[in-house]
Amino acid sequence: MFEQLRRRSRSAGLPPGSPEYVGDHGGEPVSIEMLTYDAGQAEATTPKRLSECACFNDGPGVTWINIDGLHDPGVIKQAAEVFRLHSLVVEDIVHTGQRPKMEELPEAIFVVLKMLKYNEDERRVEDEQVSFILGPRYLLTFQEHAGGDVFGDVRQRILTGKGRARAQGPDYLMYALIDAVVDNYFVVLERMGEDIEDIEEQLLTAPSPVQLERLHGLRREALFLRKYIFPLREVVARLEKGGSELVDDATIVYLRDLYDHTIQVMDTVETFRDMLASMVELYLSNISLKMNEIMKVLAMFASLFIPLNFLAALYGMNFKFMPELDWEYGYFTVLTLMACSATGTLLYFRNKGWIGKKGRG
Amino acid sequence: MFEQLRRRSRSAGLPPGSPEYVGDHGGEPVSIEMLTYDAGQAEATTPKRLSECACFNDGPGVTWINIDGLHDPGVIKQAAEVFRLHSLVVEDIVHTGQRPKMEELPEAIFVVLKMLKYNEDERRVEDEQVSFILGPRYLLTFQEHAGGDVFGDVRQRILTGKGRARAQGPDYLMYALIDAVVDNYFVVLERMGEDIEDIEEQLLTAPSPVQLERLHGLRREALFLRKYIFPLREVVARLEKGGSELVDDATIVYLRDLYDHTIQVMDTVETFRDMLASMVELYLSNISLKMNEIMKVLAMFASLFIPLNFLAALYGMNFKFMPELDWEYGYFTVLTLMACSATGTLLYFRNKGWIGKKGRG
Amino acid sequence: MFEQLRRRSRSAGLPPGSPEYVGDHGGEPVSIEMLTYDAGQAEATTPKRLSECACFNDGPGVTWINIDGLHDPGVIKQAAEVFRLHSLVVEDIVHTGQRPKMEELPEAIFVVLKMLKYNEDERRVEDEQVSFILGPRYLLTFQEHAGGDVFGDVRQRILTGKGRARAQGPDYLMYALIDAVVDNYFVVLERMGEDIEDIEEQLLTAPSPVQLERLHGLRREALFLRKYIFPLREVVARLEKGGSELVDDATIVYLRDLYDHTIQVMDTVETFRDMLASMVELYLSNISLKMNEIMKVLAMFASLFIPLNFLAALYGMNFKFMPELDWEYGYFTVLTLMACSATGTLLYFRNKGWIGKKGRG
Amino acid sequence: MFEQLRRRSRSAGLPPGSPEYVGDHGGEPVSIEMLTYDAGQAEATTPKRLSECACFNDGPGVTWINIDGLHDPGVIKQAAEVFRLHSLVVEDIVHTGQRPKMEELPEAIFVVLKMLKYNEDERRVEDEQVSFILGPRYLLTFQEHAGGDVFGDVRQRILTGKGRARAQGPDYLMYALIDAVVDNYFVVLERMGEDIEDIEEQLLTAPSPVQLERLHGLRREALFLRKYIFPLREVVARLEKGGSELVDDATIVYLRDLYDHTIQVMDTVETFRDMLASMVELYLSNISLKMNEIMKVLAMFASLFIPLNFLAALYGMNFKFMPELDWEYGYFTVLTLMACSATGTLLYFRNKGWIGKKGRG
Amino acid sequence: MFEQLRRRSRSAGLPPGSPEYVGDHGGEPVSIEMLTYDAGQAEATTPKRLSECACFNDGPGVTWINIDGLHDPGVIKQAAEVFRLHSLVVEDIVHTGQRPKMEELPEAIFVVLKMLKYNEDERRVEDEQVSFILGPRYLLTFQEHAGGDVFGDVRQRILTGKGRARAQGPDYLMYALIDAVVDNYFVVLERMGEDIEDIEEQLLTAPSPVQLERLHGLRREALFLRKYIFPLREVVARLEKGGSELVDDATIVYLRDLYDHTIQVMDTVETFRDMLASMVELYLSNISLKMNEIMKVLAMFASLFIPLNFLAALYGMNFKFMPELDWEYGYFTVLTLMACSATGTLLYFRNKGWIGKKGRG
Repeated sequence: MFEQLRRRSRSAGLPPGSPEYVGDHGGEPVSIEMLTYDAGQAEATTPKRLSECACFNDGPGVTWINIDGLHDPGVIKQAAEVFRLHSLVVEDIVHTGQRPKMEELPEAIFVVLKMLKYNEDERRVEDEQVSFILGPRYLLTFQEHAGGDVFGDVRQRILTGKGRARAQGPDYLMYALIDAVVDNYFVVLERMGEDIEDIEEQLLTAPSPVQLERLHGLRREALFLRKYIFPLREVVARLEKGGSELVDDATIVYLRDLYDHTIQVMDTVETFRDMLASMVELYLSNISLKMNEIMKVLAMFASLFIPLNFLAALYGMNFKFMPELDWEYGYFTVLTLMACSATGTLLYFRNKGWIGKKGRG
Repeated sequence: MFEQLRRRSRSAGLPPGSPEYVGDHGGEPVSIEMLTYDAGQAEATTPKRLSECACFNDGPGVTWINIDGLHDPGVIKQAAEVFRLHSLVVEDIVHTGQRPKMEELPEAIFVVLKMLKYNEDERRVEDEQVSFILGPRYLLTFQEHAGGDVFGDVRQRILTGKGRARAQGPDYLMYALIDAVVDNYFVVLERMGEDIEDIEEQLLTAPSPVQLERLHGLRREALFLRKYIFPLREVVARLEKGGSELVDDATIVYLRDLYDHTIQVMDTVETFRDMLASMVELYLSNISLKMNEIMKVLAMFASLFIPLNFLAALYGMNFKFMPELDWEYGYFTVLTLMACSATGTLLYFRNKGWIGKKGRG
Repeated sequence: MFEQLRRRSRSAGLPPGSPEYVGDHGGEPVSIEMLTYDAGQAEATTPKRLSECACFNDGPGVTWINIDGLHDPGVIKQAAEVFRLHSLVVEDIVHTGQRPKMEELPEAIFVVLKMLKYNEDERRVEDEQVSFILGPRYLLTFQEHAGGDVFGDVRQRILTGKGRARAQGPDYLMYALIDAVVDNYFVVLERMGEDIEDIEEQLLTAPSPVQLERLHGLRREALFLRKYIFPLREVVARLEKGGSELVDDATIVYLRDLYDHTIQVMDTVETFRDMLASMVELYLSNISLKMNEIMKVLAMFASLFIPLNFLAALYGMNFKFMPELDWEYGYFTVLTLMACSATGTLLYFRNKGWIGKKGRG
Repeated sequence: MFEQLRRRSRSAGLPPGSPEYVGDHGGEPVSIEMLTYDAGQAEATTPKRLSECACFNDGPGVTWINIDGLHDPGVIKQAAEVFRLHSLVVEDIVHTGQRPKMEELPEAIFVVLKMLKYNEDERRVEDEQVSFILGPRYLLTFQEHAGGDVFGDVRQRILTGKGRARAQGPDYLMYALIDAVVDNYFVVLERMGEDIEDIEEQLLTAPSPVQLERLHGLRREALFLRKYIFPLREVVARLEKGGSELVDDATIVYLRDLYDHTIQVMDTVETFRDMLASMVELYLSNISLKMNEIMKVLAMFASLFIPLNFLAALYGMNFKFMPELDWEYGYFTVLTLMACSATGTLLYFRNKGWIGKKGRG
Repeated sequence: MFEQLRRRSRSAGLPPGSPEYVGDHGGEPVSIEMLTYDAGQAEATTPKRLSECACFNDGPGVTWINIDGLHDPGVIKQAAEVFRLHSLVVEDIVHTGQRPKMEELPEAIFVVLKMLKYNEDERRVEDEQVSFILGPRYLLTFQEHAGGDVFGDVRQRILTGKGRARAQGPDYLMYALIDAVVDNYFVVLERMGEDIEDIEEQLLTAPSPVQLERLHGLRREALFLRKYIFPLREVVARLEKGGSELVDDATIVYLRDLYDHTIQVMDTVETFRDMLASMVELYLSNISLKMNEIMKVLAMFASLFIPLNFLAALYGMNFKFMPELDWEYGYFTVLTLMACSATGTLLYFRNKGWIGKKGRG
């Protein structure tokens, strides 16, 4: 849960701008994808080396270069050179404990986001950092590891020429990719929502420590989602209203739409948090109710039999001189007395409302 | 409860601006209503096709076109063409998981709201999305399904010429419709308020798991109401203060009034939330009190009889040599001892304040 | 408690600006008071009809017209005509579920407030809506019903010429009346404060469901007070800083003072809310403590006697061959054993800290 | 606790600007101190009448007039005349239920504050209102009663010429006095902090109702401190940034320092509130834990002996025909059975983790 | 925990600007380090007296003077003279209870921060105050005591010429040092995060008072961290956006990066607070669950045997005339009755869901 913190803490002491990767994905090979397109055509290549991408800013079409894997310092260093990146930007790309943010560089816009994925096996949300660098005719994206991104649909739309993606500049491409990331948040949130509904149903029927643990886990998840998602609002707002020349007026209307989606995601996370808090209270109340039930049963059993027991023990004493013992109907008198005592106690409980419709009777 | 989220999540992966309906109302036929009026007269028609509405912007009177049903992509596509709508606007209309919002389009104002209805059978609040597009001489409204809207009174006032509606432009019409939506919120809130008072009364007399479940349900409802209603404040504020040419100065004073109503609705929702939280605490306190009562009864029963029982058991032992057993008044001595013990215990309880006015005696 | 909401909900469906009263005070006759004064003299009359008030704006002195009772649509309609009121203003006056607000009309200032009264019998705060319309030379006030207002002192000061009221314009009069309303809030709050202190004292000595119910009631009251009082801050601030020509510079300094008082009222309501929340926790803690006490007594009684009882029962068995029974000192040995067991148990409890200064011994 | 409110409520109904004292200090005589100084010399006098202070604004040196006691309307009236005070200012001085505030008068600055004192006997914080009126060459201060102020050090520094106080104007003097008030807040807070630490230590060892009551008392104190201290931030900020001619540029840097101190006081009060809330939770948790402990002991005692008791009672029955009773080793068989039952139960408890390291054994 | 407050309270009554140290580190000797460097070379010296540092502002290289130890008034006074510091600045340096802040002095920038260190032995976070004074060509730093600072890496980078530190001005140096302080916060937070995860794991398995105490301790730590870290955001923001001439444009981009880190630290502290609050609830819920378990065992044991015991006691009575006692199969009838009673009770419990998968069976 605190991987983020651990990664961040690992980089303490390094000089500012160190390009050393502090994430957890190490062994996989770095892979590069290059997509060049304009309104008329689109072409995808997978260059072996970054030096083949040096033409990234030559236009006239749009160039999208996607790099999967941040653990190889050589590759990162080369990328910094080829794409002329400031050392702090490189640091932000490889130090994967970043908070989502947007920064205007002299000739580009730099955006860091978190992609989320619901891990069905461990029932928890996983995050992966994506960085975007938007230039006049190009878009660079950096992901922590290959596979599992949410950019497939966009890539497909560009290659097949579907949608308006191909006729637009790299700013629209960046919008489309961020939109895909945010759309995926909804998928993750829906998955969490199912979990919440699931637990909610069980809470009222059978409170058990298992649910408590899951509730606590979900609250933790919601806390972390919030940390990743809330800064995004500002990122999108600044893209929309920043007035950068790199963002076309035609794209602004799409960014406004994206902004609305971001707000919706935030609303949902907050609603989850409120609901989970309410559910913990429900849980506690239910435990208390069950306890009441248990104690009521115990109190009634005990209170009913204790006086009877006493009477029985009384006449079990071995005193020489106990006149009742010699009465002919002593035994039956005592039995009657016991019946009266039991009836009285039961009436007392009925009077208190402990038994009745749902009591033991 | 998470239908909203589910609908939203369903549309992930679609390209931006897809006109596919993601709501739950599918089978009903789409119905169109057209109302043209000016100060002098009013006429209602129900065109079979949207193409008959092409005159919507020709004036000089006001044209209100209301479309019920969003599930038919053909109709939606046609509407987009006839009314010249931007693809993102179409998307917002059919993707019914929207947050209430207001957007200024080049020549129109676009507003999305939620209509609420209290479903008496399932005791829960249902929502339906309404979209408004306000042009210079026309107003378009889109609802998820026919029937159950709250626009009947306004329609009637226009047709009968009552009120000032007919002499005003489409901006006043939009105000009147939104006002009807907000007025209806009060009806829904009153219904919830009755539920709250209902539970409140029972809470103090007989806490049961049923009420707890209903309390939890109401808190959830309040959370969702809040999500639908709070963004409305901004929508109305922007209509009032936005300075759009489409909104007449004479309408502004009405919008200010509407704004006040929106604030009142928000206040009420917040008050509900505070009250429900306070009621959960009340509930928990009451359970604890009942538990105290139960334990007090048990403790008194047990503590009263346990020493007596011991004495009885003591003289029930079968030792050969137990001098007390042979005393002539041994039995009565023990009975006296028992009476003393019982009196002492009762005095101890009275001293502790456990018995007295409301004790068992 | 939700009368407010009920009244509001009743007016849903009416066209905007309907002058129908939705409050609860119906049967009383409407009464009109007119007070005209200038620095030199003051005169009070009680006109039978509103038409006699048509001179309200003729000056040169100040005219204050106070109307008690809003339930007669005829009177209200007449008032609208005589005083030339916008239909929305009339609606706000008669729809008594208003939130306090201030509105600048073309030639007047419109203010709606709530007067509060502590009902000693039902131990709850009652509200009554007051509306002010401030013109260049006049002030109109509308109250829901006659009697029980807090304007007596101001009226008296004007008639007797005491204070600076008579030499000032109607803006000072309005200030003085609102000040009287706010001053009265302090009286209501003090009364609630006494209740709170009352309960607080009892909480620590004898927690009972009665206090819990009263605590819950007070929290509800505080919630509603907040709803009535908090918007007032903005009303007064806008009067003070609004820069309206109707408010004289000399009055501004008084309004600033009023503003301070409003803040004090808000502070007090917030403090009440915090204290009540803290008291509920105190209450819960106290119940838990009492429960601990009860259980300790039960646990000690039971644990002390259970082993003794067992020993007694053991030697109450009727086996043919039980050597101990025939020992001469068997009985006394068992008694000694019991004494040891009891001592051991008591030492164990003392060791656990359950008995000592305040234990049972 | 609600003296503040009571005082405020007492003044309801009075006309605005009434100079009647509503505090609790009545009998003491009003005392006046006058201190005139410049860089070269300083002189303290104690005039009998206010008329002797008429030279307060004549300069060239600085005049500081301090009045202790606000209950004599004659003196107050005279002060208003001599110092030419607006009636609302006089009201604010004598109505001691003020919220700290700063107001710019035409030729002076008016500041109201609360001095705090920790009453060691009653273990609670007491407040006293101080008002400052800063003119071009003079400073007036009004306190509720003589003695117990925190101005001694400043007075001494002026008289002895130590520090930079004497060379500065009355604005620096006011700063120094407010600084002394704020410094004293730290003393009060430290005293409360000790109380908090005191209780905290006991909480973990021996939760008792006494601590609960003190905790509740401290929370109440913190609430009231907050009410007195938080408005001070704004007062100091407005002095610093207000740009009044009465405040010299050289003094501004000191006011900024004072501002930092005020923020620190606020931070501390908030931290106290958070800690106290956390301690109440700790307390509740601890009670629950103790309860668990008690119940565990009871459950083990009872569960251990109940089956044994049953066996003993079984063979205490007086049936004619009970074969076991006649067995030679019946008694020992039963004893063995009992030992097995006890062992089984204990193993069951050990298995549940109830006994072990800290169990009863 | 309240050392901060105690130190602050100690300085109450002193005149503003007193240079007396109020921290806890007294006996160590004051040590001075001087580092002069430019792009070409770097030289470290340790002057014995402050007078040797008088050349601190002579350039052309950068001079960094670090003073460890604030307890010697002579040294502090000398520093004030040599470096021409305002008395309030000196006070802020030695009064170590400061809130982090940034102040623009006429020719320098003054920054106060807190360095944090996790004390592994006492498991708590310790703080040390660091003050920075940034001039055109110099940087002064003051620490409470020698050793344990986090500036080693920066010092090393300057001396070895690694990184860009040496080619930059003193503003970059200050940035690098503050960055080191903030980086170290991550280390402290990670350590706390480990503690939190540690406790979290135990909470679900074995709730004990030890964890409760540690939880409470961590909450207290989080409160204090917050107090130290949150003002830092403003400090860095003002450095970045303040537009001071002392801060070079090239440094601003680094400060923005630092700002992001500060926000991350704040986010983490808030997440910790939320998690700790959630864990306390988890703890309470778990205790309640355990209690339920205990009571269920007790209730079942007691309810099972109480009726059996009664039957046994009944036939242990010594009445002369008890027909059942003489029946041949009386004993076995009673045994059967007992078996039936026990079975019935067990079925009742199974029906209630108390036994079954995880019950006692």
